[in-house]
Amino acid sequence: MPVKPVPLTQKPEWLALLQQKNQLENLTMRAMFQQDPQRAQRYLIEGAGLTLDFSRNRLNDDTLTALINLSKACGLEQRTSDLFNGATVNLTENRPALHTALRQPENTTVLVKGTNIIPEVHATQARMAQLDREIKNGTRTGYTKRPFTDVVSIGIGGSFLGPKLAVEALKPYWQGHLRCHFVANIDGTDISETLKRLNPETTLFLLQSKSFRTQETLDNSLVARQWFLTNGGNKNAISKHFMAVTANVDAAVRFGIHKENIFPMWDWVGGRYSLWSAIGLPIALMVGMDNFRALLAGAHAMDTHFKEAPAEQNLPVVMAMLSIWNNNFWGAGSHAVLPYDEYLKHLPEHLQQLDMESNGKQVTQHGATFEYGTGPIIWGGVGANGQHAYHQLLHQGTRLIPADFIIPLTSHNPVAHHHATLFANCLSQARAMMTGKTEAEATQELMNSGMDKAAAKRLAPHKAIPGDKPSNILLMTKVTPDTLGALIALYEHRTFVQSVIWDLDCFDQWGVELGKQMGGEILPRLLNDTEKGSTGDSATDNLVALFRSANRH
Amino acid sequence: MPVKPVPLTQKPEWLALLQQKNQLENLTMRAMFQQDPQRAQRYLIEGAGLTLDFSRNRLNDDTLTALINLSKACGLEQRTSDLFNGATVNLTENRPALHTALRQPENTTVLVKGTNIIPEVHATQARMAQLDREIKNGTRTGYTKRPFTDVVSIGIGGSFLGPKLAVEALKPYWQGHLRCHFVANIDGTDISETLKRLNPETTLFLLQSKSFRTQETLDNSLVARQWFLTNGGNKNAISKHFMAVTANVDAAVRFGIHKENIFPMWDWVGGRYSLWSAIGLPIALMVGMDNFRALLAGAHAMDTHFKEAPAEQNLPVVMAMLSIWNNNFWGAGSHAVLPYDEYLKHLPEHLQQLDMESNGKQVTQHGATFEYGTGPIIWGGVGANGQHAYHQLLHQGTRLIPADFIIPLTSHNPVAHHHATLFANCLSQARAMMTGKTEAEATQELMNSGMDKAAAKRLAPHKAIPGDKPSNILLMTKVTPDTLGALIALYEHRTFVQSVIWDLDCFDQWGVELGKQMGGEILPRLLNDTEKGSTGDSATDNLVALFRSANRH
Repeated sequence: MPVKPVPLTQKPEWLALLQQKNQLENLTMRAMFQQDPQRAQRYLIEGAGLTLDFSRNRLNDDTLTALINLSKACGLEQRTSDLFNGATVNLTENRPALHTALRQPENTTVLVKGTNIIPEVHATQARMAQLDREIKNGTRTGYTKRPFTDVVSIGIGGSFLGPKLAVEALKPYWQGHLRCHFVANIDGTDISETLKRLNPETTLFLLQSKSFRTQETLDNSLVARQWFLTNGGNKNAISKHFMAVTANVDAAVRFGIHKENIFPMWDWVGGRYSLWSAIGLPIALMVGMDNFRALLAGAHAMDTHFKEAPAEQNLPVVMAMLSIWNNNFWGAGSHAVLPYDEYLKHLPEHLQQLDMESNGKQVTQHGATFEYGTGPIIWGGVGANGQHAYHQLLHQGTRLIPADFIIPLTSHNPVAHHHATLFANCLSQARAMMTGKTEAEATQELMNSGMDKAAAKRLAPHKAIPGDKPSNILLMTKVTPDTLGALIALYEHRTFVQSVIWDLDCFDQWGVELGKQMGGEILPRLLNDTEKGSTGDSATDNLVALFRSANRH
Repeated sequence: MPVKPVPLTQKPEWLALLQQKNQLENLTMRAMFQQDPQRAQRYLIEGAGLTLDFSRNRLNDDTLTALINLSKACGLEQRTSDLFNGATVNLTENRPALHTALRQPENTTVLVKGTNIIPEVHATQARMAQLDREIKNGTRTGYTKRPFTDVVSIGIGGSFLGPKLAVEALKPYWQGHLRCHFVANIDGTDISETLKRLNPETTLFLLQSKSFRTQETLDNSLVARQWFLTNGGNKNAISKHFMAVTANVDAAVRFGIHKENIFPMWDWVGGRYSLWSAIGLPIALMVGMDNFRALLAGAHAMDTHFKEAPAEQNLPVVMAMLSIWNNNFWGAGSHAVLPYDEYLKHLPEHLQQLDMESNGKQVTQHGATFEYGTGPIIWGGVGANGQHAYHQLLHQGTRLIPADFIIPLTSHNPVAHHHATLFANCLSQARAMMTGKTEAEATQELMNSGMDKAAAKRLAPHKAIPGDKPSNILLMTKVTPDTLGALIALYEHRTFVQSVIWDLDCFDQWGVELGKQMGGEILPRLLNDTEKGSTGDSATDNLVALFRSANRH
């Protein structure tokens, strides 16, 4: 018996949060910590090898309860169960989203249209393991029998960002016999600069495209094939040097790839969740299949935590609801991801796709317009470097920017006091965002350092920092395959939980279609001087003419 | 006779812009283009080898005039003249900001406290040229007389981001005898992973720190020196392998650096503008001093354009005022920088520091609180890659995000139809942001493709795109030292013009002090188990304990 649902912003749980905000508005976080010596301990939760300290947010137990209540009122429990069980959670594309199945143990069952998909998932992993083994032990080589030294992953979007993140993050686990390169961009510089460093006899190309129709990937693959052929390779050798991960087997075969060198993709895996599938081959080949399985196990541990942990202690739920809190109630419009670890430097880019492509939507899953903001801008970079760049604005700008600090407790590269210094930097940034410095404190400090009162009073407003900027600190003992898997899965589920609150389809991406369509109309006019007629707007026509003129032979 | 200035938001020029906004609010950009066939041409301006198409913004001639009027009312002309002439434009630190002097021709004069600084600038360039020459021709070598093969720049913030951007952007101009590495982070991984690839006999370290007190840079330099000594180098050889760019000569000498290997920095150059000084040595050594001089010349051409071009045709002025327009009147809180060029991939990071550290301020230059938003969040990444990541949110998210598309008309690496495809992608994104697609259009399109009306109507809201998202397209014939110099200088002046409107000191960065101070208090507690007492808040204490426990031996 369907009843018309109450709009989100009229739900009593939403209104309760508005009230919470009114109550907390004039209470500083400094005061909250002073009033409650147990605050730090109470807002520290753990799961799947990760520890989340969310005590530096503007909330108390009542707020947390109200946030959890909102998640319940939005049907999070049912939606989570639907996600894992293969229900059609992607309504506009009428399909499930089963990236979690990719990290399920072998003895489990997940049904898609009545068929258990887990055996095929594990059969694919077995093939990945075999490839890893054969390249390592030299039973699979290039066409001149020389062992492979380089693997080039050609893919874009989800076929690029996730694998790149993981390959770089797990550098301490590299097996050593291979170098890995990623080619994504249709800018000719990307493939050209990469090919310069390669020998066709010892290079393996992985073509990564679910549809085998992605323009950038296809065009780059054709250039790679041509380079291979003009640098010693022959047509028969192509099958030894080109493999594909795709759901479009026919197109890959037409390209020249042997069927046994094609790894499957499934329509129940979205591009931005595909690193767990054979799209993760660059990872598996670089760190070995055992470590790739550890990555999957870490993600699976987070899946289990997400399904089973009570909401108040559930990392994805708490982080998602804090983001709702900061965005929809306190006016943040972006979210900074600040990994204090060089190996995690590509995390912000991966999370940009994961979160912004998922939650950058203007209508609910049923097509209604929002009366509230949805996905924030995800941005950031590696710390401590950012402290010397954009942290000025975090501390003293006019924008409210919640931040996630991510840092391992121990380093793969213990050097002098570096890791303690890095850790101190991370803690001090979160602390400075929280406490700030009052104008009175700044004045006093300046006078203590010998400045006269008038000068101190003039300078103090520039040194004052408002504080009360929310942040999370996310810790792991070390960056390992396990903790990396858990970390990425944590953000996947965080993104999903937010989509449930906002009632949007986080698994489609219709907004990217129009640009592709228009690009297809513009391209012939750039290539062909004789192509006549307007592209439809004078601004485009104008630049088409500039391009033609600059590239005329 | 000082009169109390009218607050910005009460100036008649500001109010005129509010009125403009009201008039334009219900007029789409599509309609503007339809009404005015000359629109594209009229909003295309040029300077210093760059072309700016700003026709895809919500403005007409009256708006442009009103924006220029506001800049005049804020005293832009006088402030610009002050900037170039060495007036004390950095009030809180009581000094000029003369990065423009670093790119002045030799026969000019810029006085600082009565002394012409141009001769010293050019003397330094002559020393840079000599170093470039000596390394190339082998008269300057390592301690075993082997030629240098690697240069390692150790620096952070402005001593890192600018040089890194330019070295990568000018890869086609690399001389070929050197590889360049950057070490910035206090994360031990940064220096460790770099040193792995080096031979001490053939490695030159450049220590880049104006104060020679930057913690990250000093700590990394000490590790590099220790590595050098334990891998064959001796104390006397240090002076051959370590050079410094600093204003603190004594500290550099104490480190073991010969005076003649110390290049000067001046207090009238801010860190985020220092790539034009000897901090740019990694650039000069990689591309040769002639190309470095071309980079300076490009920046100088932009300086001249900025000083001389009429406001309506002045690239930095127009881009700055468009940013004011989008941020302060239309509610944007961020700005996307989207270089469609692999070589420019580090541009967003450099602009993050440049803009966010400059304009991320909460008080006016006289210490008063703002009633308006200042510096937006700068973020972005290389195109076309971003189209497969965050463009979904650009097109269909609930946030207004103005974007700068930056693309060269010709490629250094012409491959197949890649460059035309890249260009078509860039144009189509700007066009899609501008025109959008109505729900009616989406419905019709779906029905044309064979979908029944009910299904089409259900899906159409997901495919509709609101459009009317502003963007600029910035073009150059090719990415060369000249155009790169002009491009970076363009953003420097854009940042400055915005600061003039917002009436803030864009040359200080007091907000970063508190974190440093707190870090200094926390570090001893991480290093020393016996250190007692609270750090001042339980959240920090808690994580200090976790760190100690994980790192206990």
